[in-house]
Amino acid sequence: MKPKLTIVKIGGNVIDNPELLDSVLADFAKLENAKILVHGGGKLATRLGEKLGIEAKFHKGRRITDQAMLEIAVMSYAGGTNKSIVAKLQALGVNAIGLTGADGNLILSEKRAVKTVDFGFVGDVRKVDSEALRNLIQCGFVPVFAAITHDGKGKLLNTNADTIASEIAIACSDFFDTELLYCFEKPGVLANSEDGDSVISLLDAELYQRLKAENKVHSGMLPKLDNCFRALENGVSVVKVGSEKLLSDQNSGTKIQP
Amino acid sequence: MKPKLTIVKIGGNVIDNPELLDSVLADFAKLENAKILVHGGGKLATRLGEKLGIEAKFHKGRRITDQAMLEIAVMSYAGGTNKSIVAKLQALGVNAIGLTGADGNLILSEKRAVKTVDFGFVGDVRKVDSEALRNLIQCGFVPVFAAITHDGKGKLLNTNADTIASEIAIACSDFFDTELLYCFEKPGVLANSEDGDSVISLLDAELYQRLKAENKVHSGMLPKLDNCFRALENGVSVVKVGSEKLLSDQNSGTKIQP
Repeated sequence: MKPKLTIVKIGGNVIDNPELLDSVLADFAKLENAKILVHGGGKLATRLGEKLGIEAKFHKGRRITDQAMLEIAVMSYAGGTNKSIVAKLQALGVNAIGLTGADGNLILSEKRAVKTVDFGFVGDVRKVDSEALRNLIQCGFVPVFAAITHDGKGKLLNTNADTIASEIAIACSDFFDTELLYCFEKPGVLANSEDGDSVISLLDAELYQRLKAENKVHSGMLPKLDNCFRALENGVSVVKVGSEKLLSDQNSGTKIQP
Repeated sequence: MKPKLTIVKIGGNVIDNPELLDSVLADFAKLENAKILVHGGGKLATRLGEKLGIEAKFHKGRRITDQAMLEIAVMSYAGGTNKSIVAKLQALGVNAIGLTGADGNLILSEKRAVKTVDFGFVGDVRKVDSEALRNLIQCGFVPVFAAITHDGKGKLLNTNADTIASEIAIACSDFFDTELLYCFEKPGVLANSEDGDSVISLLDAELYQRLKAENKVHSGMLPKLDNCFRALENGVSVVKVGSEKLLSDQNSGTKIQP
């Protein structure tokens, strides 16, 4: 039987709230099996950019990463946020090691091809080195990933943290029984996006297709849920979406099923 | 026989010069035995601080690290500089992994006690985990350290890069035949600090004491040379000080001897 590995992704709502972050890290510390944390960026990069007079650029809600913004993302995600989380986890007795995809060539990406819009230095994941990750875990380290990867040719790339989490979970399914937990600002997938009490406890592919056809899935949820189903179709055992309570309450959030 | 391990420290003069940095990394890539790179910060932190309106504070030439400056140091050293070096080394075929002392609890420090001056969040190294470093090296990783450590209680600490390099070299002497190379802006220890051609090729403790007594050692060199002799007294086999040519030319620079 493969050993269990839990991959937890936390988003900006946790990163930007110091008390919530501390409580999430305390819950993460309590997970007894092998584990990996993936974090997004939060507002630090945007704030730093503003202070430096570098304007955040978006196309239809998606960030465009020019060279100046890439440097800010690397400094704030892989520097500020990542190392602060690592130090906090170490204080909780978790042997965290902070990483980007460039470190140990763990996540190789390709700069997104320019079609109609040039999103700049944004990477689409090509390969996760699950063997190297397994080695790190076997050495007793708990990987903590910032959402930065590289192209293997010397260029760092800003990369979607949800995708990094699902690609890690998929690749690590070679060696582990993997569980993927997406913590975000809602208590789960909602039947009615206005109503926090309308959490769908079990979402399978059929229901997802139906909800999509009825335009009942919030557009911001679509890429996240596509990542969830992709993970399930590629060897990941368990996928859940919900608030940070996913870490402490088995029955919290939405369980995604094939 | 213990396997050979080379620890290379590069300073601001290399970090701040992109062409020189590329050439140093190319030479580092050619070293065939196990290796570790330690880098200082360069001007990125100072420039970032200036842009953010945070003034660098010094006491008799030594930096005072307040909370704002610590955050800038972590972002620029552990984020910007470290990850950029890692991506460049990966492109050269070196399986670099970027680290601070907080990662994997590799370098534990203590905040420097306040005597007459409070240097702020500055760490004095207490323990390097040589076994964890050996594990990383045995997994095929090449550690690249930014000069940031932690206190194990959740606080990151700015730490002298020369000291980090010598403490790593000393600790790793348990498992390796260690060589410590300090690359800096001069071609070696100079008999006359005004004359770049006056490199002392061999400096032993006796000569060092004599030069010190005669006030012939530049004051900025004293802590570096103290680190060198401390390393030699604690198990490090070879210590050299010089320009980046140390990496490609066996006869370059100053060899320090007990």
